[in-house]
Amino acid sequence: MSDEAAAPSGPEALFAGGKTAPHAAEESSKMKSHTKYLTFHTPLRRQLLRITEEVATVCRESAIREGMILVSAMHITAGVFINDDEPGLHADIERWVQKLAPGPAADDSSAGPDYQHHHSGEDNGDAHLKNLLIGHQVIVPVTAGKLDLGPWQQIFYFEFDGRRNKRLVIKAMGE
Amino acid sequence: MSDEAAAPSGPEALFAGGKTAPHAAEESSKMKSHTKYLTFHTPLRRQLLRITEEVATVCRESAIREGMILVSAMHITAGVFINDDEPGLHADIERWVQKLAPGPAADDSSAGPDYQHHHSGEDNGDAHLKNLLIGHQVIVPVTAGKLDLGPWQQIFYFEFDGRRNKRLVIKAMGE
Amino acid sequence: MSDEAAAPSGPEALFAGGKTAPHAAEESSKMKSHTKYLTFHTPLRRQLLRITEEVATVCRESAIREGMILVSAMHITAGVFINDDEPGLHADIERWVQKLAPGPAADDSSAGPDYQHHHSGEDNGDAHLKNLLIGHQVIVPVTAGKLDLGPWQQIFYFEFDGRRNKRLVIKAMGE
Repeated sequence: MSDEAAAPSGPEALFAGGKTAPHAAEESSKMKSHTKYLTFHTPLRRQLLRITEEVATVCRESAIREGMILVSAMHITAGVFINDDEPGLHADIERWVQKLAPGPAADDSSAGPDYQHHHSGEDNGDAHLKNLLIGHQVIVPVTAGKLDLGPWQQIFYFEFDGRRNKRLVIKAMGE
Repeated sequence: MSDEAAAPSGPEALFAGGKTAPHAAEESSKMKSHTKYLTFHTPLRRQLLRITEEVATVCRESAIREGMILVSAMHITAGVFINDDEPGLHADIERWVQKLAPGPAADDSSAGPDYQHHHSGEDNGDAHLKNLLIGHQVIVPVTAGKLDLGPWQQIFYFEFDGRRNKRLVIKAMGE
Repeated sequence: MSDEAAAPSGPEALFAGGKTAPHAAEESSKMKSHTKYLTFHTPLRRQLLRITEEVATVCRESAIREGMILVSAMHITAGVFINDDEPGLHADIERWVQKLAPGPAADDSSAGPDYQHHHSGEDNGDAHLKNLLIGHQVIVPVTAGKLDLGPWQQIFYFEFDGRRNKRLVIKAMGE
């Protein structure tokens, strides 16, 4: 873990207090915004895609120095989250979402349980619940013109019902 | 699904690249904000209410062209989420939150398990956990003066401990 | 519950309509931002810390009247949430995250299950899943220069893999 600083000693140092960003813009200025849409079409029903680079591109294009970027799935059967880019962990996450919101296998090699939603002609009830479990959006802070992420934080799009076009909106707002 | 465009072919088209919003405001301008509170009082302990129209009203009133709207429960026993407005799915969601964070029946026809929180005189321990499971807020992007939602995305308030007044804040911010 | 107003009567009053904030800024003005980082170093693997006061300090320092404050963990093994500051509930939450995403005891008195992530040399697979379950960020609205929280809403940092330095970013944006 390269992100460790010298540890404060003793339990009284549990909370090490605040440090203001050296680049924090205190002055007032005009507001800017920038919006971009991505389209995904995964060959598998369920698939994980890293999109940190795409969000960083929107950050650069926006020319925003201080602000926030919303990364939000435009479908109700997909998730967006921030976590580690480690294949073993991704396998754990796949197993976990299947345990808490069971559905067909990612490659459709096995079927999932029936949901009342399926009576409407759909087969993706599990994908709606996985969306609620993982969440469909994150906000990334922008500081000094860059994504203000920790060293291990990567942004992911989690497709829960793929094999068709799905959209995501990335919206930057700031100064 | 009316939101499907022509599908890119082959696995190399997994990620179909970005498209900048035609209405994306690149120029700088002044910032605006607008805040509104809703009050809910549901006859049942647990109940789902669609609030997309109320959020769209705040969007119109704010006169914001590009920005974000925060929709956030002001209580710790209610959720806010975006998903499909389909009754079968809503029954699935009710069953799911009861499975992962068990509590009394929505109409109080059966009691839930005991929680340590109940020793403080409350009976809504499950409602606090459901709040953590579902989340208590969403951010809706505003583009070209409209809620920038996908075709199936509807905003819901999920009451987990009703039969009394509960508040929600809707805050728009943008240019 | 001191936050109850006179209850509307009958089911037709289920939805009591909107009230615009008396302090809502309708006029346009210049944008401001302010960023601060906190560092935590908990003696236990898993620990809950209230940070409402620290977020309120950032709010004051920012001099923002109308806006939003993002409170976001910069690590992938920590959560941020808003809920009640009641010890019994906190015990329920600890039990709940252990049930849905099992791991070692908070004080390491017992080991957790094996995760595939552990093959990479880590021992914190459960902490990544708890992060996904609870979420790593919240947005707090700022109205009339104050955190616009309900009477029971407190902001918490939930450490899932402590005993080392972990950072959190608090970013205010508004006018």
